[in-house]
Amino acid sequence: MGSPGATVGWGLLDYKTEKYVMTRNWRVGALQRLLQLGVMVYVVGWALLAKKGYQEQDLDPQISVITKLKGVSVTQIKELGNRLWDVADFVKPPQGENVFFLVTNFLVTPEQVQGRCPEHPSIPLANCWADEDCPEGETGTHSHGIKTGQCVVFNGTHRTCEIWGWCPVESGAVPLKPLLVQAENFTLFIKNTVTFSKFNFSKSNALETQDPLYFKQCRYDPRSSPSCPVFRIGDLIATAGGVFEDLALLGGAVVVYIRWDCDLDTARGSECLPSYSFQLQERSYNFRTATHWWEASGVEARSLLKLYGIRFDILVTGRAGKFGLIPTAITLGTGAAWLGVITFLCDLLLLYVDGQAHFYWRTKYEEAKAPKVTASPEPSEPASAPRCPAAREP
Amino acid sequence: MGSPGATVGWGLLDYKTEKYVMTRNWRVGALQRLLQLGVMVYVVGWALLAKKGYQEQDLDPQISVITKLKGVSVTQIKELGNRLWDVADFVKPPQGENVFFLVTNFLVTPEQVQGRCPEHPSIPLANCWADEDCPEGETGTHSHGIKTGQCVVFNGTHRTCEIWGWCPVESGAVPLKPLLVQAENFTLFIKNTVTFSKFNFSKSNALETQDPLYFKQCRYDPRSSPSCPVFRIGDLIATAGGVFEDLALLGGAVVVYIRWDCDLDTARGSECLPSYSFQLQERSYNFRTATHWWEASGVEARSLLKLYGIRFDILVTGRAGKFGLIPTAITLGTGAAWLGVITFLCDLLLLYVDGQAHFYWRTKYEEAKAPKVTASPEPSEPASAPRCPAAREP
Amino acid sequence: MGSPGATVGWGLLDYKTEKYVMTRNWRVGALQRLLQLGVMVYVVGWALLAKKGYQEQDLDPQISVITKLKGVSVTQIKELGNRLWDVADFVKPPQGENVFFLVTNFLVTPEQVQGRCPEHPSIPLANCWADEDCPEGETGTHSHGIKTGQCVVFNGTHRTCEIWGWCPVESGAVPLKPLLVQAENFTLFIKNTVTFSKFNFSKSNALETQDPLYFKQCRYDPRSSPSCPVFRIGDLIATAGGVFEDLALLGGAVVVYIRWDCDLDTARGSECLPSYSFQLQERSYNFRTATHWWEASGVEARSLLKLYGIRFDILVTGRAGKFGLIPTAITLGTGAAWLGVITFLCDLLLLYVDGQAHFYWRTKYEEAKAPKVTASPEPSEPASAPRCPAAREP
Repeated sequence: MGSPGATVGWGLLDYKTEKYVMTRNWRVGALQRLLQLGVMVYVVGWALLAKKGYQEQDLDPQISVITKLKGVSVTQIKELGNRLWDVADFVKPPQGENVFFLVTNFLVTPEQVQGRCPEHPSIPLANCWADEDCPEGETGTHSHGIKTGQCVVFNGTHRTCEIWGWCPVESGAVPLKPLLVQAENFTLFIKNTVTFSKFNFSKSNALETQDPLYFKQCRYDPRSSPSCPVFRIGDLIATAGGVFEDLALLGGAVVVYIRWDCDLDTARGSECLPSYSFQLQERSYNFRTATHWWEASGVEARSLLKLYGIRFDILVTGRAGKFGLIPTAITLGTGAAWLGVITFLCDLLLLYVDGQAHFYWRTKYEEAKAPKVTASPEPSEPASAPRCPAAREP
Repeated sequence: MGSPGATVGWGLLDYKTEKYVMTRNWRVGALQRLLQLGVMVYVVGWALLAKKGYQEQDLDPQISVITKLKGVSVTQIKELGNRLWDVADFVKPPQGENVFFLVTNFLVTPEQVQGRCPEHPSIPLANCWADEDCPEGETGTHSHGIKTGQCVVFNGTHRTCEIWGWCPVESGAVPLKPLLVQAENFTLFIKNTVTFSKFNFSKSNALETQDPLYFKQCRYDPRSSPSCPVFRIGDLIATAGGVFEDLALLGGAVVVYIRWDCDLDTARGSECLPSYSFQLQERSYNFRTATHWWEASGVEARSLLKLYGIRFDILVTGRAGKFGLIPTAITLGTGAAWLGVITFLCDLLLLYVDGQAHFYWRTKYEEAKAPKVTASPEPSEPASAPRCPAAREP
Repeated sequence: MGSPGATVGWGLLDYKTEKYVMTRNWRVGALQRLLQLGVMVYVVGWALLAKKGYQEQDLDPQISVITKLKGVSVTQIKELGNRLWDVADFVKPPQGENVFFLVTNFLVTPEQVQGRCPEHPSIPLANCWADEDCPEGETGTHSHGIKTGQCVVFNGTHRTCEIWGWCPVESGAVPLKPLLVQAENFTLFIKNTVTFSKFNFSKSNALETQDPLYFKQCRYDPRSSPSCPVFRIGDLIATAGGVFEDLALLGGAVVVYIRWDCDLDTARGSECLPSYSFQLQERSYNFRTATHWWEASGVEARSLLKLYGIRFDILVTGRAGKFGLIPTAITLGTGAAWLGVITFLCDLLLLYVDGQAHFYWRTKYEEAKAPKVTASPEPSEPASAPRCPAAREP
């Protein structure tokens, strides 16, 4: 009944378990226990608990960001006269996206019309002595227009090629003092919603509140009020490692990182709060834009604005974890596999290093010589038994 | 020839297999079979097939979205007279990005110029009784300008601080009826292309079609035409759970989720279609913008627009899976490891719970006492044999 | 001392190792070695080294993109007269985001005011014979305004419904030659910064350089200067597989892919350089925008621009890998598990296919019959021993 035939029959329910050789070799034994302990600690302590190896993860949330700036600032400039800037003037684009630009300074070229005028000396190849220096129709990537072929006086000191384009050309002047210094006191409200579609979980950084004035009054502060999504620009820049006056002068780019690390195994999202960090990315930033209009004479005119300012990038990243069968199985299963590896290593010691290696080797590896005659011995006897009588023969 | 020496030699080709102890213990046997079956079902049925454990995944596609709104709407307002709005007027920004704003209502302050005028009473600290209440130069985050230090009459009922800024100040009036109600019938065309760089696979939600009029005529409908990427705004809002009239009045924010779940093991992308879902995110949304121009007198004027409207965020997420050797190996390998765990568990039963535990224990763990004399017995005998004669002693 | 009791005591330090049956079956042995070699090669060569299975990955970097276009272009058009376009005119939005639009062509409708005029014949349902064909107040998604109910002469050849809207309506004319052909020579500067928050590593594609003129002079070239982030539009389009003249005429959409593949185990980011690729996505692209102003008469007027041009999407994707304990453990552990599977497979051969199957079977599976009497035999004897005397009985 120990025969293969029998097994195929109801032998399915036989319980087969590896036969072990037990050695009293406490050195190897101790080593094995140590390693096993190590694996246990690693799997349970590190992989499972510390690294949350039992959780399925969603690392790619869907993100929507709404921003709103508030504040007013007044400037004195001769071209435009006294001028007050409010949110409708200094935020571009105005509709509150996750990337926007706060004007803190600008260089205005008020009444430009299409025509002929001397190029600015700062432009490569603009300076000239004679018309020959100004090939007609030539233009460069950085030039303000198309050369007309004539060399004219720019001012007392310079002669430059005449160009055809928006005239007069922008003066290369770099502003010496920021114009919208009050921007430091502006406030930025960020509403950010993350949706982890894998877990069908969604959360916003703006807490629901009864008090209608809450968002008007609170200010973000890492310690006192870390959950208030209203940031004072000046503080934000400072935390990012910038000096507001400098950035306000020549502009800059600041990144606002919002990181979500959500453990959804706790009471729904109670462990799911954003953390903010700020980083200065560029120490100068500007771009040009223009306001176009038609003069009474029917000529199109524009006032060119070179806007310096602070560009805000609001970058959101998130990670949500929730118990999952598969990751747990993988983590534990891997641990189990490692236990096997340990035995293998200890065997190497036992079988090739230990003083009794030969003996252990023979004990562990029971040799089975297939009998030449395939007449199978009676099934009820284990393979090693037949040699017992043989051993008795004198 | 069973000696280690031999092994090191050509013994490499010896086949070594664990020796098992077969017990007729059908209880434990049955339990083992059950557990093995469970692991099999889990690995093959759940991890492999249901969860596509054999697939490598790309969860971070590169996304590009192009949007286009169509429609016209007419409004009657006294400040601007009868006015027809078309796509050039009510979509901001106009260039068709994945986040845009559809104007449905607005509060216009037509002819603002820089000057002095009374602040609006709704602003904090705006109301006053005497000039002392209006410290000169003071300004607040929500105020419209810089206080001049005088307290003037706002209208019959209120006295407020005079400010210097864009005058007259915007009236805090909240519109009572939406102006662009026809916006409900506008259509939104979304073209979305996802690229899974890991698999070098790219797909768009706008099917290639011969019919040039297809996208002009079709409308998205979850049931009848789920693959038409043209959405009627009214239906979209309704599905998102909003009432268009309300949103049109005070604005709002709606998120359009596009989810791609692509199985690239099927005929290229045949199993790769987007699913749309909509969600109302904000019940009020507005921002201010201004049109600037120069009056004949050379004074800069602007008409300030407080735009209410619906902000659309189009958020795309995607997941593509394709057969990969490594994930398959991990899934199966883990399963194999679990089979080992099962034997371990059953052993515990057999060795510490079963009635015959003692006996099984001794059978499973064959004791190997290293002989004091290292004279190795003849190799052909298993380690346990020498004790047979000993057993014969009377 | 082999009894369970003993084990529970100091037996913990016993070293137990599986007992193996060693067969001289070189066929199965060879097969096993082969398979083991295979697993080794797969695990070490493929999973570990080739696929960097020892690395933890961050596939979801935080991305910020800053773009800047440079160049000037001149156009001759009768409506606007000779006109030079510079960066302030042809880039929308101007503030340098990752999605922007380069105007290469446009259809201008200069002096539109609100009023009554005949609809354009190209619009569905615009053509008419009598007023009955023009139901008053009707409007369509594609129409330019609200029908007034009258059928008027559009021009010599057509009669169309009169509408109330911005008049005159835009002519459906399609431009025959691009207006801003010089756009081909414009240059696009892309500054892209990726931040792998998991590893707290950040890198930009714009190398730090002492030379202030470097970014003004260098041009991207896959071979000669692959790390210069300044792209000539013409070359970019060509690489994307487009013909600039065609795109300039009717517009188009081009995607610039930036891929980061960072191995952070090497000297910080030395192995972390972006690779650029370009793809043509749309062969026609346009949108409408308008410049509004107030005429002397106080009437609001606008000049409607239908802008054709090239839309640029800059899509960044990144992957960073760094040695991690857990992925390494999983990769190796899985390999170990597979070695077990191999033995299982070989056993099947040995036990059910091999000629000596019966014999091997009995050798591998030592039968253990629990004695009916539960008086446990003296511990020092293996389970198989008691049968030896039995075997002696004549």
